[in-house]
Amino acid sequence: MLVLRSSPASPFGRKVKIVMQELDLSDRIQIVMADTTNPNDTLRQQNPLGKIPALILEDGFVLYDSRVIIEYLDHLAGGDRVIPTDPARRYRVLGLQALADGIADAALLQVYEGRWRDEAQQSETWKAHQRGKVERGLAAAETWPLDDSAHVGTIALACALGYLDLRFGGDWRDGHPKLKAFLDRFAARVPAFETTRVKA
Amino acid sequence: MLVLRSSPASPFGRKVKIVMQELDLSDRIQIVMADTTNPNDTLRQQNPLGKIPALILEDGFVLYDSRVIIEYLDHLAGGDRVIPTDPARRYRVLGLQALADGIADAALLQVYEGRWRDEAQQSETWKAHQRGKVERGLAAAETWPLDDSAHVGTIALACALGYLDLRFGGDWRDGHPKLKAFLDRFAARVPAFETTRVKA
Repeated sequence: MLVLRSSPASPFGRKVKIVMQELDLSDRIQIVMADTTNPNDTLRQQNPLGKIPALILEDGFVLYDSRVIIEYLDHLAGGDRVIPTDPARRYRVLGLQALADGIADAALLQVYEGRWRDEAQQSETWKAHQRGKVERGLAAAETWPLDDSAHVGTIALACALGYLDLRFGGDWRDGHPKLKAFLDRFAARVPAFETTRVKA
Repeated sequence: MLVLRSSPASPFGRKVKIVMQELDLSDRIQIVMADTTNPNDTLRQQNPLGKIPALILEDGFVLYDSRVIIEYLDHLAGGDRVIPTDPARRYRVLGLQALADGIADAALLQVYEGRWRDEAQQSETWKAHQRGKVERGLAAAETWPLDDSAHVGTIALACALGYLDLRFGGDWRDGHPKLKAFLDRFAARVPAFETTRVKA
């Protein structure tokens, strides 16, 4: 049995959970909650970076971050499932994943601003800098030639948009009709997106 | 001709530059400086996340981040060069890269604290949290079964340690004799590590 350390709200943990279900690996992986802010959580022994998701293999080796875990799961499932091997598609898909992960990262850094600092320590300049990344990232995703298959690119994008929904409301839909339509189709087509949804 | 947007001090840009030289791709890639803090730099049109490194392909498609770029360069060079295809090695190597990138990320967030905030806005709690990631990350790397070949794992680790040297002095060497010996061997063996070194 593999063990996945994650938390319900993590957009990167959600990527892995969706991939697990899409690849029919759920019965081989036990999900164990992790609290990244608790120094006594075993997470920091498992992943010295103290980050989720982390996947503990049967021999005790721990894989992180979400990209490495997903590549491993794709390999376990036979390969070429959620990460295309054909170079003409592969770097487009990995590029979309990097864009989506970057949007989620910039959103998380804004959330951390409130979680780790009192008001006097918060920086409007820093928050605006991260907001700029999200806004430009969404504009780029809006013009991306999105296909309807569930691969690491579309899965990462759905999780980034889902994280914006959770923490910043649905405002991102304004001015991004293609992304809105993409997420509606993705949610209808990929059951794991609904089962991993966290209520705000 | 491909174009790499980067800056001399970026540990992630340095990974790509070392891979370029190791794979004999330097004459196919022009390096153009990018300033991530300047809103008018064309970088933000090329990579909406405003991050370096970014690699502009001949058809105008832009690849980021460093992991995606390196995988593409490895593919250009025939594959199985700096990223092993054999699963028994691959996930160990990708795991080491993830650990090293995480150390560099946590170091960068400490540097950003001084770059983006006046003193009153800086958080000792946040800085200590990032320092903890670096310290635990170094301890994990110290016990890692490091081999002497230049792959994305060892290259990323060398660049993370090099970044600690640049921004935090050489203190990381205390208590990490294996990492110190590793970096000495790596620097002697990989000429690109020296040619990409930035003086503090």
